[in-house]
Amino acid sequence: MMINTPKIRLYIDDNIETEQIITLNEKQSHYLVKVMRLNISDLVLLFNGRDGEWVSEIKSFEKKSVVLKLVKCIRIQEEQTNLWLAFAPIKRGRIDLIAEKATELGVSRLIPVITAHTQTTKVNTARLRANANEAAEQCNRLTVPEIIEPISLKNFLSSWPLGRILLVADETGGGAPILDIIGRSGRKENTAYTLLVGPEGGFSSEELDELSKLPFVTKIDLGPRVLRAETAVVAAISVIQAVSGDWQNDKV
Amino acid sequence: MMINTPKIRLYIDDNIETEQIITLNEKQSHYLVKVMRLNISDLVLLFNGRDGEWVSEIKSFEKKSVVLKLVKCIRIQEEQTNLWLAFAPIKRGRIDLIAEKATELGVSRLIPVITAHTQTTKVNTARLRANANEAAEQCNRLTVPEIIEPISLKNFLSSWPLGRILLVADETGGGAPILDIIGRSGRKENTAYTLLVGPEGGFSSEELDELSKLPFVTKIDLGPRVLRAETAVVAAISVIQAVSGDWQNDKV
Repeated sequence: MMINTPKIRLYIDDNIETEQIITLNEKQSHYLVKVMRLNISDLVLLFNGRDGEWVSEIKSFEKKSVVLKLVKCIRIQEEQTNLWLAFAPIKRGRIDLIAEKATELGVSRLIPVITAHTQTTKVNTARLRANANEAAEQCNRLTVPEIIEPISLKNFLSSWPLGRILLVADETGGGAPILDIIGRSGRKENTAYTLLVGPEGGFSSEELDELSKLPFVTKIDLGPRVLRAETAVVAAISVIQAVSGDWQNDKV
Repeated sequence: MMINTPKIRLYIDDNIETEQIITLNEKQSHYLVKVMRLNISDLVLLFNGRDGEWVSEIKSFEKKSVVLKLVKCIRIQEEQTNLWLAFAPIKRGRIDLIAEKATELGVSRLIPVITAHTQTTKVNTARLRANANEAAEQCNRLTVPEIIEPISLKNFLSSWPLGRILLVADETGGGAPILDIIGRSGRKENTAYTLLVGPEGGFSSEELDELSKLPFVTKIDLGPRVLRAETAVVAAISVIQAVSGDWQNDKV
């Protein structure tokens, strides 16, 4: 059977196997019917972050949902990266950008970390998850990042995974240029890095002292200009991916 | 005279010299008076992209303007980078992000380029300039990027400056990993690069063919995921700055 690859890609929670019937939620159904104006027999790509990418066919339109039948797996599941992002929550809009961009750039875990100067402690993780899932749909990723509930900086640091390196974006200039740090590993792929980016007010001097003492922490510098938090996230992750991440591989 | 460095930084068009009187425009005056609630004798940093950074003192409040007197130069003018960004205009919001992020990352010239699949040909360059100037204020930059009027891809390519390299972000996977390209120069600082990022629909195949034939063009690849235009901009510029740009220098 020849299939033209459908353009529309949706993330679903359901398990996926051949001939299974999938009922989409109201929002995704609205998108297919009202925005994209699809019809019975049209094809849609589905992925759940675990079972690869599948072509599915629209079988029926219910009152507030679209029913599809899974046809064929066209991409096998890819592995998650080893790249995690920890970030102090910032205001709505900018925090949405962090979730979207980190997903586009292949981060596998998003960890909101509450620091001394963090302006907000309420984090809408459902909203972050929705932004991340939409970004995964759009950027052709087969996985979605895991979104962790907010955690204090102290608790974040207290149970550190063995072998993982914490790169702290230090606005005070206390770090070495990121390339000097990442480049050291000699382009080993998939080194387990976590990037930590602080809030608008930066880290407190006590926090920076505390971080300096930890054996798994390396402070990095992102150039002579003061970057907004979401810019620092994209900038640092891009350099990590380009030097020691999956930018050296072929297109998936 | 000891001066605590003021926190507020404003970009002005005026020439700057000692004891000169500066009258701010309505928007900046509103910001100082109504948002930041400054008073007579309070200090503000001013820069014009040519004459360094100056401490100024508020002398009077007029009806819709604030009058300041220049006191002292505290940073001498820095040079512009050699890094230019050419980009297909995208929708409002996202194009604002391009101007803001490119400025934060040190781009010295922004060139809107109209390609075959560009969705919009109207570009509000005044708005881009305002976004760039505000980003320069916020990121502690002493220069502001030059904003060029929109130009067709053909005209953009037809009068190419000698020695400048055009890096084209090729979504079709036709490029080499950006690090392989930028890394070749062996961290020479301030190589004259222009980054070109296409519209949402990518470049047409004719455009890609045409670009391939030009001796100053190198196609780059930004990893296995499909990046939005503004993400590609931040990602590529960050890698360029980290490897061959000013991220190797100390904080200004």
